[in-house]
Amino acid sequence: MSTADLSVGDPRVGDLRVGVVGAGAMGADHVRRISRTITGATVSAVVEPDAGRRATAIELAPGATGYVRLEDALAAGAVDAVLIATPGRFHEPVLLPALDAGLPILCEKPLTQDPESSWRVLEAEQATGKHLIQVGFMRRFDREYALLRDLIAEKSAGELLMLHAAHRNATVPDSYTQDMLITDSVVHEFDVVPWLAGSTIRTVEVRYGRRNRLTPAHLREPILVLMELDNGVLVDVEMNVSVQFGYQVATEAVFEKGIARIGQPSGLQLWQDATFRIGDHADFTTRFREAYDLQVQAWVDAAKQGAIAGPSAWDGFKVAVACQAGVAALKTAGPVALDLPPVPSFYADAAHPAAATV
Amino acid sequence: MSTADLSVGDPRVGDLRVGVVGAGAMGADHVRRISRTITGATVSAVVEPDAGRRATAIELAPGATGYVRLEDALAAGAVDAVLIATPGRFHEPVLLPALDAGLPILCEKPLTQDPESSWRVLEAEQATGKHLIQVGFMRRFDREYALLRDLIAEKSAGELLMLHAAHRNATVPDSYTQDMLITDSVVHEFDVVPWLAGSTIRTVEVRYGRRNRLTPAHLREPILVLMELDNGVLVDVEMNVSVQFGYQVATEAVFEKGIARIGQPSGLQLWQDATFRIGDHADFTTRFREAYDLQVQAWVDAAKQGAIAGPSAWDGFKVAVACQAGVAALKTAGPVALDLPPVPSFYADAAHPAAATV
Amino acid sequence: MSTADLSVGDPRVGDLRVGVVGAGAMGADHVRRISRTITGATVSAVVEPDAGRRATAIELAPGATGYVRLEDALAAGAVDAVLIATPGRFHEPVLLPALDAGLPILCEKPLTQDPESSWRVLEAEQATGKHLIQVGFMRRFDREYALLRDLIAEKSAGELLMLHAAHRNATVPDSYTQDMLITDSVVHEFDVVPWLAGSTIRTVEVRYGRRNRLTPAHLREPILVLMELDNGVLVDVEMNVSVQFGYQVATEAVFEKGIARIGQPSGLQLWQDATFRIGDHADFTTRFREAYDLQVQAWVDAAKQGAIAGPSAWDGFKVAVACQAGVAALKTAGPVALDLPPVPSFYADAAHPAAATV
Amino acid sequence: MSTADLSVGDPRVGDLRVGVVGAGAMGADHVRRISRTITGATVSAVVEPDAGRRATAIELAPGATGYVRLEDALAAGAVDAVLIATPGRFHEPVLLPALDAGLPILCEKPLTQDPESSWRVLEAEQATGKHLIQVGFMRRFDREYALLRDLIAEKSAGELLMLHAAHRNATVPDSYTQDMLITDSVVHEFDVVPWLAGSTIRTVEVRYGRRNRLTPAHLREPILVLMELDNGVLVDVEMNVSVQFGYQVATEAVFEKGIARIGQPSGLQLWQDATFRIGDHADFTTRFREAYDLQVQAWVDAAKQGAIAGPSAWDGFKVAVACQAGVAALKTAGPVALDLPPVPSFYADAAHPAAATV
Repeated sequence: MSTADLSVGDPRVGDLRVGVVGAGAMGADHVRRISRTITGATVSAVVEPDAGRRATAIELAPGATGYVRLEDALAAGAVDAVLIATPGRFHEPVLLPALDAGLPILCEKPLTQDPESSWRVLEAEQATGKHLIQVGFMRRFDREYALLRDLIAEKSAGELLMLHAAHRNATVPDSYTQDMLITDSVVHEFDVVPWLAGSTIRTVEVRYGRRNRLTPAHLREPILVLMELDNGVLVDVEMNVSVQFGYQVATEAVFEKGIARIGQPSGLQLWQDATFRIGDHADFTTRFREAYDLQVQAWVDAAKQGAIAGPSAWDGFKVAVACQAGVAALKTAGPVALDLPPVPSFYADAAHPAAATV
Repeated sequence: MSTADLSVGDPRVGDLRVGVVGAGAMGADHVRRISRTITGATVSAVVEPDAGRRATAIELAPGATGYVRLEDALAAGAVDAVLIATPGRFHEPVLLPALDAGLPILCEKPLTQDPESSWRVLEAEQATGKHLIQVGFMRRFDREYALLRDLIAEKSAGELLMLHAAHRNATVPDSYTQDMLITDSVVHEFDVVPWLAGSTIRTVEVRYGRRNRLTPAHLREPILVLMELDNGVLVDVEMNVSVQFGYQVATEAVFEKGIARIGQPSGLQLWQDATFRIGDHADFTTRFREAYDLQVQAWVDAAKQGAIAGPSAWDGFKVAVACQAGVAALKTAGPVALDLPPVPSFYADAAHPAAATV
Repeated sequence: MSTADLSVGDPRVGDLRVGVVGAGAMGADHVRRISRTITGATVSAVVEPDAGRRATAIELAPGATGYVRLEDALAAGAVDAVLIATPGRFHEPVLLPALDAGLPILCEKPLTQDPESSWRVLEAEQATGKHLIQVGFMRRFDREYALLRDLIAEKSAGELLMLHAAHRNATVPDSYTQDMLITDSVVHEFDVVPWLAGSTIRTVEVRYGRRNRLTPAHLREPILVLMELDNGVLVDVEMNVSVQFGYQVATEAVFEKGIARIGQPSGLQLWQDATFRIGDHADFTTRFREAYDLQVQAWVDAAKQGAIAGPSAWDGFKVAVACQAGVAALKTAGPVALDLPPVPSFYADAAHPAAATV
Repeated sequence: MSTADLSVGDPRVGDLRVGVVGAGAMGADHVRRISRTITGATVSAVVEPDAGRRATAIELAPGATGYVRLEDALAAGAVDAVLIATPGRFHEPVLLPALDAGLPILCEKPLTQDPESSWRVLEAEQATGKHLIQVGFMRRFDREYALLRDLIAEKSAGELLMLHAAHRNATVPDSYTQDMLITDSVVHEFDVVPWLAGSTIRTVEVRYGRRNRLTPAHLREPILVLMELDNGVLVDVEMNVSVQFGYQVATEAVFEKGIARIGQPSGLQLWQDATFRIGDHADFTTRFREAYDLQVQAWVDAAKQGAIAGPSAWDGFKVAVACQAGVAALKTAGPVALDLPPVPSFYADAAHPAAATV
């Protein structure tokens, strides 16, 4: 089946047959999501070298076949589209054959781990003549982020002047490295900030707060990441991975005529033991549960039309450039400039796709 | 296909073929929901006498066939399950043939419009020997209601003592009658209050607030509905259908050691024009959007196992009895007692089903 | 010094010499307040039969002289005004000589403990030809109550239709009686509700919630008190004296075009241990601290001009009538009508004094 | 009357006779406050060269005498203490004769306009052998700031790691200069941040957000001010003087185990026109009204004991040094170090005075 054959508006005919590559926690969650939560797609293949993980994921998608290598699934004609959920260092070797096969791809963030490999992916995509890659920055599908982007775009509060953001995790495992503050965590801001602000990051700087003694011994955090955008907007992000109390991703936007804030507590309110309380999130699985569902649904719907509905490969490349600058900024005093090449004409119109419809 | 044949855990084999009866606004929304939002089911039949509505609904579910009468769809072997979304006065004539066919049923609230017809439905269901009917009180699938029910059940704040509720609509059409304050609106509280409190309504009383001059001329509201439960809990509900500002459904629970509140504003916060603001809901379609999705998904999943996953026909009967008392209370000073027969043994264990897993 | 001699606008000349009658917790607090917090007054006499209490209070007001009986202080010409903070059953015997002396009076709530004695006080005040008595319902001086009253009066959200109130104490001592639910606690609502709503209470009814097992053995509460006002507004008040968690006095007002709420948590916000928290009040001393200060300041300022600046003796009489009905309602099914005589012409214009300027 | 003569605990004997120097808006407000709001003090002198202002202020304090120069009031023996509310550039010429006279002084912020003149004031104070000067940084007397300081000091949420602050004004007049962003506005943070964090500012840096087109033409703002403290805490302050919507001063504190926030909206809540709303402050006069009252009361109480109860002259000097660095930072890339001399032994113990008791 080719995506071009799909009848528009016929949701039951032509479920998109998705090959999920990587069956760790994130991949297995996507298998469950495609099988049980979203519509219009089935998991037809699970590509995972580890036999145990592969079997576990296939239990969530009984019609699926297991493979060790994506190439085998492609050769079998088993997939209409590919969802990549391997560790980031394995993205390029999966992206390239999937592009070769001309298939729609949803690639978990990051696109790849450095600008050079991301650039190779851009070249491979351009060679296909189609926009096949959507990168899994799911915040664009969160309802509050979408409302904030609308508020910025409609200018009812005037122009955006500053953004203050905070990304707080309760804890991280010992395997989490100092660079991952940038490449695993701030990476989300590198995508969503330009999407919100309608501009590009020009410089990145890192400042250190007092060290949290509860963080793993090899980490120095929290940090404050400063970004200057091309349009003059100044952004600061508190990146904090040991705040103990729970999970919080919040943004405050400063406009010419007002202030907006997203990511604040909501839900059941309780007065007990002399306090008023609202439970907050423990981790991203509840905070962004709906965003993940909406993201994959939007991708499936677009893929069936030969399109993408989210961050492009160019967006992924720009994030890779920002991460490179951010990692350098961890060890540099003052702002580090991003070394961005001109946008290839192939990506020129897609540099700032419209807000996801949620 | 009989529901007994469905393989557990095989979500792709055996999509439940649902016949949606009634294709007005609510029915069409269910067609869209089954076709596009939930998984494991397809709309195979749209039963609707109005040709225009029928055609519009079928466009949302291309594989579906249109019928004028449910009996024709049943005779054609076209449906595994029935979702009833007709006006309430047509529920009984649809419920009875669907029960005759032994099919799982999701019946929009109310079950029927009076205790007598609801009792006939109970008898017909008992004759099948199976619990086939789930009634569409979707609040049980709202996450905050579920959290409140858990808090009541776990008794961490002590026993529940009182409930204060408010159900506020911006406006209602001129076709909305005084009795509908009870049968169309408070009806939700008649189901959800016993479910929350783990007890049965003993009396209903209506008190009148000062009349809102902005309500249709034939209405006298807002009203305050008082309920006494068997376990001594006292409940008051402000029912208000002309509050102009938006839509709000909120409950405050008084415990021995604290207070809980659900249904409060959340989302993007904005400071502008000298005020701090949060947008609130305009109507039930956004307030309970997720609850509707979860409800239908739970019903589909349960129906494939030959079970229900929500309010039973007995729950629906009790609500009919409460509505009868509530309508009487609109014209009566003081509490009106509910005239509830003993629970038939067939329903005895299912009187207070466990909280929906959300 | 006579109040008539006081020069307007000369705050340093002519401090009002106040005799405080009753030096229990409330009286001593007023001595401290007059001496240390408000301006334009001094405590010149402490009238208290208990020698220990008397001495303790005088330490807070070094210039004051101690007396056992008010009459002795009056005979000594020691006071320009009287603040009565004795238990309610001793109010009448203090009010009458103070009125005889023609002095301004701030009388802690209630005016007296029953309508008959309150009527005698009204007669005595009328005999003086002056409005000398202000009753200490301090809620009228709370900023949020004042904002709510302004909102009701200006009608920007339309007419007031309903009020929902809650008065919650953590605990009460064993000496607190069932009647005190009305006479000590709901008594505040009997004053502030007519003041907010610009109308008079017509009936009072009491409904019982499930009993809190943590309340003293002789109490049956929480209760829900329903009031019908002359203008059609319906009021419900949850009166709860064992809610354990803290102290809360809150009101929700239902308007034709919106909803308003006062008495909600504020102050430092804390995220810790998986929750968002705001500390709430432990008791009335912090919740209404500022209101007490503003009340006494307003009384002092008015007394120096020969006026009152708060609830009048007639307001106090009406509350006594409401309390009588409320106590009856504790043991009566259905609404109990208030037996209010016509307002004496002496009080006709002062029945609904303007909002305190805060 | 010398302050040493005042009897402790005798609030009526020995009102502190205050000379208020400067009768502009701030000075007149202090005259009103001392005359009408706080206790234990009277305004005995108003020192103001402008005859109109002087007369207006004296109307608020009828017992006061007007003077053109402080020296004349001192020569007349008319004052026990001095409150300085002139423009900052006139502080030194008032402070020096007041110190010469050995009188307690409450000096509105800043102490003086540069470190050199502040140092001269320190020398003059040391020459008196007494701590006579309290600087008017009133935030230390705000209840929420005090709660936050307590939370930091008690370490129940672990050590403080970062502070995020925002200081937002609706508008400023055309006379407001770029340097005043630092010297008139951020100056408050230069005092309160070290007081909160228990540490000293080491560097100041200024970053620019996108310029607000609604700000006066000669201003470039909002700005983000970054401070590094000696204990490693990193501080960022959004300074914004054209945000149009109202007045907001808020701080978020990042701890090892949680987050705290002060300065959030509170008060009457209103649902109308599809939004939930809370009114916010229009300017500092309501936001810090109580703090001003508590500050002056604490100063009066302390002055009568020969002490201060707030920021010392050394605190004022440190702020002058921080302002000098901050003004330089407006035109400098990267952090500007503060050039702080060692603390004179005279001030060593008072460098971080205990939290004001509020």
